[in-house]
Amino acid sequence: MEMLSCQLDRESSSPMYEQLYTYIKTEIMSGQISFGTKLPSKRKLADFLKVSQNTVETAYEQLVAEGFVEGVPRKGYFVLASEDLEYVQRVNPIKKQSSKKKETIDYNFHPSWIDTSYFPFNNWRKHARNIIGPENHSLLLTGEQQGEYVLREEIANYLYQARGVHCSPNEIIVGAGIEILLQQLILLLGHSSVYGVEDPGYHVISRILQNYPNKVFPLEVDNEGVKVDELGNSPVDLVYVTPSHHFPYGTVLSANRRIKLLNWAGGLANRYIIEDDYDSEFRYSGKSIPSLQSMDKREKVIYLGTFSKSLIPSIRISYMVLPKPLMNRYKEELSFFQCTVSRIDQHILANFMKDGDFERHLNRMRKIYRRKLEKTLEILKPYSDILEIVSDLSGFHVVVEVKNGWTEDMLVQQAKEAHLKVYPLSAYAMDKQYGSHPRIVLGFAGVPEEELEKAIRTLLTSWGI
Amino acid sequence: MEMLSCQLDRESSSPMYEQLYTYIKTEIMSGQISFGTKLPSKRKLADFLKVSQNTVETAYEQLVAEGFVEGVPRKGYFVLASEDLEYVQRVNPIKKQSSKKKETIDYNFHPSWIDTSYFPFNNWRKHARNIIGPENHSLLLTGEQQGEYVLREEIANYLYQARGVHCSPNEIIVGAGIEILLQQLILLLGHSSVYGVEDPGYHVISRILQNYPNKVFPLEVDNEGVKVDELGNSPVDLVYVTPSHHFPYGTVLSANRRIKLLNWAGGLANRYIIEDDYDSEFRYSGKSIPSLQSMDKREKVIYLGTFSKSLIPSIRISYMVLPKPLMNRYKEELSFFQCTVSRIDQHILANFMKDGDFERHLNRMRKIYRRKLEKTLEILKPYSDILEIVSDLSGFHVVVEVKNGWTEDMLVQQAKEAHLKVYPLSAYAMDKQYGSHPRIVLGFAGVPEEELEKAIRTLLTSWGI
Repeated sequence: MEMLSCQLDRESSSPMYEQLYTYIKTEIMSGQISFGTKLPSKRKLADFLKVSQNTVETAYEQLVAEGFVEGVPRKGYFVLASEDLEYVQRVNPIKKQSSKKKETIDYNFHPSWIDTSYFPFNNWRKHARNIIGPENHSLLLTGEQQGEYVLREEIANYLYQARGVHCSPNEIIVGAGIEILLQQLILLLGHSSVYGVEDPGYHVISRILQNYPNKVFPLEVDNEGVKVDELGNSPVDLVYVTPSHHFPYGTVLSANRRIKLLNWAGGLANRYIIEDDYDSEFRYSGKSIPSLQSMDKREKVIYLGTFSKSLIPSIRISYMVLPKPLMNRYKEELSFFQCTVSRIDQHILANFMKDGDFERHLNRMRKIYRRKLEKTLEILKPYSDILEIVSDLSGFHVVVEVKNGWTEDMLVQQAKEAHLKVYPLSAYAMDKQYGSHPRIVLGFAGVPEEELEKAIRTLLTSWGI
Repeated sequence: MEMLSCQLDRESSSPMYEQLYTYIKTEIMSGQISFGTKLPSKRKLADFLKVSQNTVETAYEQLVAEGFVEGVPRKGYFVLASEDLEYVQRVNPIKKQSSKKKETIDYNFHPSWIDTSYFPFNNWRKHARNIIGPENHSLLLTGEQQGEYVLREEIANYLYQARGVHCSPNEIIVGAGIEILLQQLILLLGHSSVYGVEDPGYHVISRILQNYPNKVFPLEVDNEGVKVDELGNSPVDLVYVTPSHHFPYGTVLSANRRIKLLNWAGGLANRYIIEDDYDSEFRYSGKSIPSLQSMDKREKVIYLGTFSKSLIPSIRISYMVLPKPLMNRYKEELSFFQCTVSRIDQHILANFMKDGDFERHLNRMRKIYRRKLEKTLEILKPYSDILEIVSDLSGFHVVVEVKNGWTEDMLVQQAKEAHLKVYPLSAYAMDKQYGSHPRIVLGFAGVPEEELEKAIRTLLTSWGI
């Protein structure tokens, strides 16, 4: 019994059985009690330690559960064999990290920042309050794999009215961001598919693709959009395009190229077009450009959309519309994926759309962003010999070619010195040497309207303009 | 001008410019106006149609934007070349789908269903109300890629106290489900890594892996957990295990095997153990089993956890703890991935944890599920000759071997006839022929406590027991 002469602390906050368990475990792990040793019977040890038999039993059972000890019926408890390991009882709990030193940024011209000051918090909170309640307790359980039907219905209605997209809720998959949906597509379409991506383009897409075994071909872009003719002689099966509003140039893919692209895809069974319709809500003149999906009659267009720009970047709700044959394949092969968006959030958004709050918010924001664009152009206009706007006038940013003899790096760096953050065009190109002309992607949407002039003038000053 | 003798409807709800634009576009697409044709000047067409010049200009600009027409300075507007396409103006809007006919299920014994009736809706709603407000407007913008720091801090504290996991918030990545985090791991660890998975085990894991180029090896499981000795002679680099509570058997990986497993991983630089610590909150006797991560001193254990069971399955918040070297690699290679969970939800959860609501909820649910387990055992006990419980007594389900001579299929089918849903063990095995003994995974957590007896008795009756 000597081997178990442990000191139990009756005043400790840790229960007696736990102290006993910890003691025996440590003895076993340190080799003090060796393999095969029979532990004292519960009654004897309880007497010896002046504790209840129940305490000893609980400690022994825990040792059994963890596999240190084996209980043999009518014989007792025996220590099991164990390989050596330098067991470490690490002691330091979480170190409070010194709060990270943040760079001072007065204004961030990030092309995907939105103006948060007009978000209808009261309406959103009202819908949240209505959804989060015991009458909706079934919403806590796992929902439909494609996303909640009520939300898919609202999305289908919206897409039909706003983008000419024809789909039923059954062809929609809701996901936590375009990146997640793209990854599901990559799995669905197989690793031997070759992707063509716009270059420059939305850089995250090519970075994701490069992490998969699929081959990726950059496709050149000119003032009619992506050069579709290059596809004919390439091994590309899948094209990732932004036809309504190329990122970052804002170019609209010309009608001729749209038709060529659709015809190219129609040429072989395994060809598809992935249409990323980001920012399409924010055209400020004329009618919005119809989606490519709305022109497709051969089920060749996979349509991607998101609420990041039109609502909240941090809410992480995006969706894709699959042509029927692909949707069937998805159901067969990938239906084990659960929907990646909280059901509660899906219902809040569905009600927000159903009540017209989404449409009202969009209409309001469109006017605000339009004013910001006009303001930006007005401020830049007098410098048109040094600052040439090389992008289409829509969305959340303009691309400015800066002709003061500086490189993109210098422009970004000097802005930073003035506590401003701007983004070089080369950040969005696969070939980092892209372009001989220094171009800056200037997001105007996230800067408060009344400070836009000050922000841009500070930027120009930092560039010596 | 004859070519543009379109009928504009002044009473229509569609604006004049849009009618004109649609008319010209249709004429171009149908070939009525051919490539190279010069369109009438704005002034002439405006006079002819009795509309303002502004209307014509807006229509022309839209055609230019979409690439049907080109504006040549001082010359006018010309129709651009376009390949042929059978353009379809699809007309059917969304068909209202007939509401899907649902199978009648009175009770669902799904092993991952929770009891939703005790969820603290009021507290959750209170935290939601506090977070969703204009004072938090910056939460609308994209947040930290690993997840919100405040939430990672709460998770690190919780893991240290409840699971002995040592980590700083900097080593945690928050994601919309274990599946999403596993996919990021697969990309991080490369496609040539070979995975070993428990068989039977959590089937979604192997199904995800099978969609990647990585090779997957099934690892046998016995009453000490996964057979670690098999690893030595295998090409496996990464092992996906559930050491605290094997799915579905509930077995605790024995101390000896834990140490062997850690030593195996320590043997080569590219070996890692992925510890899925699902359900670990729900042990009903003794102390909880310490995590494998807490025994690891060589930075070989990747720890995965989720709030699906402990809180809400549909909220989609999970997390992983990476060893420091892997975390550094993640930051270098995969930092373009944005966090997949809504920031608002992350802050609601962080406050819920900070205020102790999470701990109180866990303690309460542990008691409830324990009572349900005891009730289940009590009801099954008299039939122990036909119904053998072959799983550990913890978590949300038991595995029952049914010795009435029926196959798993028959057991599932007969239960279904009685409006009950149960799950065959073979659904969780890679080899569908797995096991010669018919076993049923019986989740008791999702069935209301007061109806548990009725539900189980109905099940036994359906099986002729």
